[in-house]
Amino acid sequence: MGEQIEFDQAHQTLQEISEALENGRFVHVRRQLQDMEPEDIAHLLEASPRKSRDVLWQLTDPEDYGEILDELSEDVKDALVSKMAPETLAEATEGMDTDDVAYVLRSLPDDVSREVLDQMDTAERLRVETALSYPEDTAGGLMNTDVITIRGDVVVDVVLRYLRMKGELPEATDALYVIDEESLLIGHLPLTSLLTAQPDTPVTEVMDDADEAISVITSASDVASLFERRNWVSAPVIDENLHLVGRITIDDVVDVIREDAEHSMMSMAGLDDDEDTFAPVVKSARKRSVWLGVNVLAALAAASVSNMFEATLEQMAAIAVLMTIVPSMGGVAGNQTVALVIRGLALGHIGDANKRELLMKEAAIGLLNGILWALIIGAIVIVWKGEWMLGGIIAAAMLTNLLVAGVAGVTIPILLKKMNIDPALAGGMALTTCTDVIGLSVFLGLATLFI
Amino acid sequence: MGEQIEFDQAHQTLQEISEALENGRFVHVRRQLQDMEPEDIAHLLEASPRKSRDVLWQLTDPEDYGEILDELSEDVKDALVSKMAPETLAEATEGMDTDDVAYVLRSLPDDVSREVLDQMDTAERLRVETALSYPEDTAGGLMNTDVITIRGDVVVDVVLRYLRMKGELPEATDALYVIDEESLLIGHLPLTSLLTAQPDTPVTEVMDDADEAISVITSASDVASLFERRNWVSAPVIDENLHLVGRITIDDVVDVIREDAEHSMMSMAGLDDDEDTFAPVVKSARKRSVWLGVNVLAALAAASVSNMFEATLEQMAAIAVLMTIVPSMGGVAGNQTVALVIRGLALGHIGDANKRELLMKEAAIGLLNGILWALIIGAIVIVWKGEWMLGGIIAAAMLTNLLVAGVAGVTIPILLKKMNIDPALAGGMALTTCTDVIGLSVFLGLATLFI
Repeated sequence: MGEQIEFDQAHQTLQEISEALENGRFVHVRRQLQDMEPEDIAHLLEASPRKSRDVLWQLTDPEDYGEILDELSEDVKDALVSKMAPETLAEATEGMDTDDVAYVLRSLPDDVSREVLDQMDTAERLRVETALSYPEDTAGGLMNTDVITIRGDVVVDVVLRYLRMKGELPEATDALYVIDEESLLIGHLPLTSLLTAQPDTPVTEVMDDADEAISVITSASDVASLFERRNWVSAPVIDENLHLVGRITIDDVVDVIREDAEHSMMSMAGLDDDEDTFAPVVKSARKRSVWLGVNVLAALAAASVSNMFEATLEQMAAIAVLMTIVPSMGGVAGNQTVALVIRGLALGHIGDANKRELLMKEAAIGLLNGILWALIIGAIVIVWKGEWMLGGIIAAAMLTNLLVAGVAGVTIPILLKKMNIDPALAGGMALTTCTDVIGLSVFLGLATLFI
Repeated sequence: MGEQIEFDQAHQTLQEISEALENGRFVHVRRQLQDMEPEDIAHLLEASPRKSRDVLWQLTDPEDYGEILDELSEDVKDALVSKMAPETLAEATEGMDTDDVAYVLRSLPDDVSREVLDQMDTAERLRVETALSYPEDTAGGLMNTDVITIRGDVVVDVVLRYLRMKGELPEATDALYVIDEESLLIGHLPLTSLLTAQPDTPVTEVMDDADEAISVITSASDVASLFERRNWVSAPVIDENLHLVGRITIDDVVDVIREDAEHSMMSMAGLDDDEDTFAPVVKSARKRSVWLGVNVLAALAAASVSNMFEATLEQMAAIAVLMTIVPSMGGVAGNQTVALVIRGLALGHIGDANKRELLMKEAAIGLLNGILWALIIGAIVIVWKGEWMLGGIIAAAMLTNLLVAGVAGVTIPILLKKMNIDPALAGGMALTTCTDVIGLSVFLGLATLFI
């Protein structure tokens, strides 16, 4: 039975279905899709090139649309939704979580989204409109409104009978929320406490108090940190009047955690976090070209530095041959520091209290590695080019640049963050420009002076 | 009440405590620490420089040690544990999850870990020894053994009375596991189903079947994908004989998800995932220096290419000034593709079925951006240097290199993965070497031919 087998099967299914699609065996594919769980169909869609994706979507049972859309990443979801008729979409939303319906509606033109809302029943429409009233990347945008509330003045047995009467609880319910007569949140009752309490105990005696409530305006990243640190499975959300407005469950938070963690890697490469692996060529090319444009400026800055030393370069071609080594080493060393600092900032480990400590540490590492690689590269150049002076110059430039890389690697991301610029996005490029310019200036400057 | 306030307070506490430490107000700090939750103390330790960390640890109530160690990242945990006496450690393990105790014992010398085991009570020692018998990065290493099992042939009311008798359930319990007389796992009973079922229903009628079980040898990353895709809160773990041996909870999986996602960013910069922000200087310098050594080879490869064209460089210094632009653009464009492919491979979106499609897409993007930036850079060079031929040459080299970057950006990570080399670790460096060498060769080669 083991899941490893199921896991390998998922990869096999992908291969099988794409072959069946290529051979036009649509009936076979439709039957396969019927046997699959919505979350596996979502994974299949993500892994499919765009053409097959549209065909697969047509072959999927529309009853599963809602649950599948719930699981898709944003870019892929947007592309599929944009091609759906409002009626189909309204039907699909019946199987979806409120927060996901709100997400989908946000991405639609206003008139289409209005049309979809009009086709919902009143209770559902109210829930979705509430969700729409909060910004997407806040607790309000993440929350679901399917909370079960109970009163504090009843006994456990009454709650048990109430739940049996209801017959079904929302997914990932691990606690009931206790409110007073003004629907203020006064506590929450974990299911585990409910199950172990004696039937005649009043709810107020077994519930936990309400200090775990999240404010509706808390940012999604802060919500994720709280869940991660406190090991929560779900948490209640309250508005500014302390009224309970919904709850956030761990499955939505896991998405935020992954996105936040991936954000740094994708941003450092100049990509959107949610860039679809199979996005349309022209759209991708346009997005990425912005980043290349920034790099052109950085590359031209470096070229301008070399340009100032044109006379020196003319005098001795070996200098031109060697001049890329020092900037390259500085860029790599500095980006190690930048990556460490970006992660530290994201996890909240770096602040005013410890940044000087961090600066000293990275400067010391830069100095140590600077000495090591200055000696090695200096020796290599002396052996290779037979020029003592050139070896000394490149060693001095290397030492300087690795020290600069350590210091700049700490200060640039922290400064960018202070200026409200995303350090993951701009940090690497700013650092490389800095180590390129300083590495080239020192190496070519010393060469001009001494050769 | 809102959590935003609590969140800001955490940052303030850090500042306040580090000031109090500097001023030697240890009694004050000890009192502050007593008022803090273990997970907040863990966060404080992570954010503290190493010296303060040791002092803070001394000032912390040893009763909290276990829960704090549970929350710390690996490097920080190792450093603290290595300084603890075996008796203190044995006491601390009482407050810890089995999987975390196993983790800590693994990092200790054999005799110390034996000593700690000897001080535990028999039941706990058996649990820990079981956990130690599985590799760390598998389901067996992640799981806890605190499962509650019930028999399938009883009715719901019996289960309810059993739970009330127990009085407390393990943390993050969302289901009970149903076993038969040979303790084979036959299903699981979510607490939500237990609460909504009629008291006289047999367990077998309300339980879900056992197909969600994870094999004990499943890798931690596969476990994380399963939890993420299926929105699980916990899942049972079975051994090769289908016996229930433990359960995995979402809080342990969240750590794996974050580590897996951070792994790519940290590896791309040549860092360990679990590098402590405040690691000792010499240790960090040594680790990072390996990566700088790899980059020296890459930088020397590029220098050797320029060296072959020394005669051309001697002839015209403007070529030396411009020669860094094409490799730089190729490196940035190629690393965008590499980052996208690494993420796609990690998420399981890229396989044999769609890699050709991806290659065509990235080549097309490379071509489009190649044309755009060839024109722009060509024009800049013509205006700047007043040389038509030089402008044409740099444009041709740019177009070639961006096309190569797109193709290499897809093929290099996929090839590395086939060779069982981590693409996140080696992909960026291999790509940059490739675009440096090809960019320089084409630019300098064309310059040699035509100038």
